[in-house]
Amino acid sequence: MAQVWCNGRFLASDDAHIAISDRGFTLADGLFETLKAVGATPLWFSEHMTRLREGAEMLGLAVPHDDAMLKDAMIGLLNNQQSPESAIRLTLTRGPTTQRGLWSGDNPGQPTCLITVAPAGKTPSQRVIVSRATRRNEHSPLSRLKSLNYGDNIIARREAIEKGATDALMLNTRGDLACATVGNVFARLDGRWITPRIADGILPGIARAKIIRVLDAAERAIGEAELAHVDAAFISNSLGCALIKEFEGRALDGEESLLPLSIYEAESRSAGQ
Amino acid sequence: MAQVWCNGRFLASDDAHIAISDRGFTLADGLFETLKAVGATPLWFSEHMTRLREGAEMLGLAVPHDDAMLKDAMIGLLNNQQSPESAIRLTLTRGPTTQRGLWSGDNPGQPTCLITVAPAGKTPSQRVIVSRATRRNEHSPLSRLKSLNYGDNIIARREAIEKGATDALMLNTRGDLACATVGNVFARLDGRWITPRIADGILPGIARAKIIRVLDAAERAIGEAELAHVDAAFISNSLGCALIKEFEGRALDGEESLLPLSIYEAESRSAGQ
Repeated sequence: MAQVWCNGRFLASDDAHIAISDRGFTLADGLFETLKAVGATPLWFSEHMTRLREGAEMLGLAVPHDDAMLKDAMIGLLNNQQSPESAIRLTLTRGPTTQRGLWSGDNPGQPTCLITVAPAGKTPSQRVIVSRATRRNEHSPLSRLKSLNYGDNIIARREAIEKGATDALMLNTRGDLACATVGNVFARLDGRWITPRIADGILPGIARAKIIRVLDAAERAIGEAELAHVDAAFISNSLGCALIKEFEGRALDGEESLLPLSIYEAESRSAGQ
Repeated sequence: MAQVWCNGRFLASDDAHIAISDRGFTLADGLFETLKAVGATPLWFSEHMTRLREGAEMLGLAVPHDDAMLKDAMIGLLNNQQSPESAIRLTLTRGPTTQRGLWSGDNPGQPTCLITVAPAGKTPSQRVIVSRATRRNEHSPLSRLKSLNYGDNIIARREAIEKGATDALMLNTRGDLACATVGNVFARLDGRWITPRIADGILPGIARAKIIRVLDAAERAIGEAELAHVDAAFISNSLGCALIKEFEGRALDGEESLLPLSIYEAESRSAGQ
């Protein structure tokens, strides 16, 4: 029986529910983290918890449990699930409220903290377009947080699928490259790997930070026009990297060995010790 | 006992829950409408349903019930609640899904449609600031939909409260006025009422459209610098209008009779017939 962990308790997933007044549901008032696990070991746990707590501080959300308890919860779920590789999702919201409306200044009583796990595997290669339907808002702090507000990313992904692609790159409001719908983007231009800056409206990906070091990638604004000259690219997130084998119908370097997968392997070896 | 209506059924509110995999909860993948009711009569019902269906079409969401059924649900809840004035909230999400991740191209099985009611009364006057913490993204179609993605509005509202105000005006990414955190804005400048255009990144408010006609207001881009010269202003939404009695510490015309409240009264008389 699939299990989840909700506000301090392990539950059968069918027994876990969200209150209809939960502000995560009514107003996207919350954050989440997605972690990879190998066996029963969450990868980059401390980095994810640091990002979660920084985001929560920014939004004035309480994190109601310490790291040790959250890690035990994840390990418990992973041991129950028994998959070789898993995706862990931790969702934190401001919780249920008795007050209608946006915000009255008082926090509701109790945040909601939910952890779920699901089997995960290799991310397939992608054929991407540039989204014309929406833009990433680099003027919003939410562009740098893993908040529940995924509406724009869903719009971009739907657009990609309608156009026969598998994912979309999102530009920011200045027209520079920001990110893909569920990951950061690295591109190779004139033999050098480049990736947008945090200020361009992107999530500060944990895999991204590691990949910048491994590839000695340059963080800089990337204008849309430059994308026509990119000859290789990939999308990264905490679960893995996906090669972009086709960009707006143009084939890119499809060599899987381009992907800096060593960052995940090194971590899983050390995490497993 | 408070009642709600969820996916075709009246339930005691304590018996109603949201699935932990509901995409409204996990990814803010949904829309809502807030309607005013006088007694057991929802106001502007057909306008709200039109906006809901247009938004749902835009997001590729199904509306699983016809207008007659949704109206009966609202009237049932209002009759049970027995308040002189109520706020009705209809929330529509893409529903629970068995698939992890942002979007794979297939809709999950069944959307979630939840209706709740709460007593409502007069909206008090507001002291507002201009949000410096975030901006409204006029490049996103979500800026023109009543989607669940309210994170930026919450950030702006929290900023206002932290600064000793009650609400914030949000600028768009160009630096022009967009809206308040839960309503459209009208401002009086040189004796003429003005209000931002839809293209400035605002919800096409139902009250807003009626007020434009009543006040013969001009829809135009309003630069931030112009706000220093405004001598009266108010916020409108479907529940009512709120005078802005103070803007960034400067007193504005505090005369309640400025508010075009006749739009709500005329409708409630005709709705009650």
